[in-house]
Amino acid sequence: MQANYTRPLDLKRGRVDLSHGAGGRVSAQLVRELFARHFANPALDAGDDGAVLPAPGPGERLVMATDAHVVSPLFFPGGDIGCLSVHGTINDVAVMGARPLYLSASFILEEGYPLADLARIVESMARAAREAGVPVVTGDTKVVEQGKGDGVFISTTGLGALPAGRTLSGNQARPGDAILVSGTMGDHGMAIMAQRESLAFDSEIVSDTAALHGLIAQLLEAAPSVRVLRDPTRGGLATTLNEIASQSGVGMVLEEKAIPVREQVDAACELLGLDPLYVANEGKLVVVVPAEHAEAALAALRAHPLGSDAARIGEIVEDANAFVQIRTGFGGKRMVDWLSGEQLPRIC
Amino acid sequence: MQANYTRPLDLKRGRVDLSHGAGGRVSAQLVRELFARHFANPALDAGDDGAVLPAPGPGERLVMATDAHVVSPLFFPGGDIGCLSVHGTINDVAVMGARPLYLSASFILEEGYPLADLARIVESMARAAREAGVPVVTGDTKVVEQGKGDGVFISTTGLGALPAGRTLSGNQARPGDAILVSGTMGDHGMAIMAQRESLAFDSEIVSDTAALHGLIAQLLEAAPSVRVLRDPTRGGLATTLNEIASQSGVGMVLEEKAIPVREQVDAACELLGLDPLYVANEGKLVVVVPAEHAEAALAALRAHPLGSDAARIGEIVEDANAFVQIRTGFGGKRMVDWLSGEQLPRIC
Repeated sequence: MQANYTRPLDLKRGRVDLSHGAGGRVSAQLVRELFARHFANPALDAGDDGAVLPAPGPGERLVMATDAHVVSPLFFPGGDIGCLSVHGTINDVAVMGARPLYLSASFILEEGYPLADLARIVESMARAAREAGVPVVTGDTKVVEQGKGDGVFISTTGLGALPAGRTLSGNQARPGDAILVSGTMGDHGMAIMAQRESLAFDSEIVSDTAALHGLIAQLLEAAPSVRVLRDPTRGGLATTLNEIASQSGVGMVLEEKAIPVREQVDAACELLGLDPLYVANEGKLVVVVPAEHAEAALAALRAHPLGSDAARIGEIVEDANAFVQIRTGFGGKRMVDWLSGEQLPRIC
Repeated sequence: MQANYTRPLDLKRGRVDLSHGAGGRVSAQLVRELFARHFANPALDAGDDGAVLPAPGPGERLVMATDAHVVSPLFFPGGDIGCLSVHGTINDVAVMGARPLYLSASFILEEGYPLADLARIVESMARAAREAGVPVVTGDTKVVEQGKGDGVFISTTGLGALPAGRTLSGNQARPGDAILVSGTMGDHGMAIMAQRESLAFDSEIVSDTAALHGLIAQLLEAAPSVRVLRDPTRGGLATTLNEIASQSGVGMVLEEKAIPVREQVDAACELLGLDPLYVANEGKLVVVVPAEHAEAALAALRAHPLGSDAARIGEIVEDANAFVQIRTGFGGKRMVDWLSGEQLPRIC
């Protein structure tokens, strides 16, 4: 758009005000000088109400997934709401077995939020999208009054192409299947909590936020028989496994000592009275695969930088109650229930 | 999901709490007993992280559009944030000339918000989606602490199929083209304002919120040469026309007395010192069409219940400055600029 402006956005000292969301001249300026500048791509640059995009190839189906991001604080060790909102939605598309193609982004900003911080978030988001090869093709921005929001909320929607014949779903797990995870559990949630509670550790706990579609492509190439993929975000591994058990109508038995957890994460959890199995991850996979292909799948995960700590952690069993159980270090078994309260609010 | 719950959601007296967004047992209950119940469709019912969907037909492209909805108040004469969030995004897809197919919905709820009101919103949203024939196929819900949100925010993303060879864009307007609107201007914005300011009028001002894809299909059938479609939401007709003028590098001359505005809307605007040309609409179209097809287009609009007040309001002219001008009732001309401030915050 070519409307005339006297001054460019003050990206150093300026703040979000209500006019940035009112749809007029100032909104257009914010879009042009911040969003369009960083997200630049032909579909977005057209400047219309929607993006026009090539459809997937013949025989392919679409996958659509959406995530609201309200993480607090907005910046944390290893990431920020910007890259998180790209990774989270790409992962939701990718765990369906689809190739992520496009993202949309919807911003709800609070009046008074510093434009400099907003710019850092948008830059991080654009970098994550570029690195993942998944452009942000359309968006929207609204502004709410001070005290009616909390800095920045970002909802992203992802669109992907699902190859013909591929069916990954939480309802595909079968007794005898192996359960794998792609790495250590609880890093993202504890990075947020440590920041929020100002916990100091010898070495910082860093979020694992990452886009998993590359890892998944490598995994499915080596083990096309994979039945379920899921990213264990809110509610952690325990809740994700319970969801799968419920959807498939099967039970699970896990080996506690096989589940990888970083030492500092374990220590921080102990300090805060949390169980790492309920703490969110943002760059990890749960994989259910027929036992005979478990080792091939594990090797494929470990061959990728995002899967170097991958482990086989248990197996699917017959159980009409869909219980998830864990064999502890002491030889006993205990139930692993769904997350039952709010344990960690605003973790993503 | 089959997890056991002792009690169903209390949809009469219950309130949103942080556990509804934490991703565990209570989140699953909210999804099952509220969202999945009302939005029921095969893609959503699968209960996975993303929806698997048939792709559009051969030769068709995709259109993707997104809108954040932060309207205040959440309920207003003629609608609520629920149906608005369906209509708004369907319209953004439809004005690109695409057939809307699917919606995603992302909710950001404030702790303490009454579940009964949330249920009314979800019911309204589901009804709007059903009436439009565009299902909500995937979604997400987050909860923020009291005082960090404002009841309910909803971001929706729409996906549509664009027939081969069709190109509607804000950059297609050409000198000599006619400019039409599908009905009266300012109804939605003034319905919100009247509610917010507790204005009383003899007859209530009602939002025009509506899904326009049926009207648009009928219009494009009768006048396939239409060059630009846009829904004049935030910033109103004035801002939408300025956007088109900028994108196409053309000027516009409007006839003030040809622009339809309801008497009560005009009176309310006068009372509040607003100009109806800058007030948001949520069920109206701006159409740019070659002059020789303007009458056919107008007749097609008028033949549809949502277009009965359609009017021809001006024409595209050559103008390197991309100015929008209006011929007033007194024979003079004045400039119609972009909306320059926040005139009406949180109107959609």
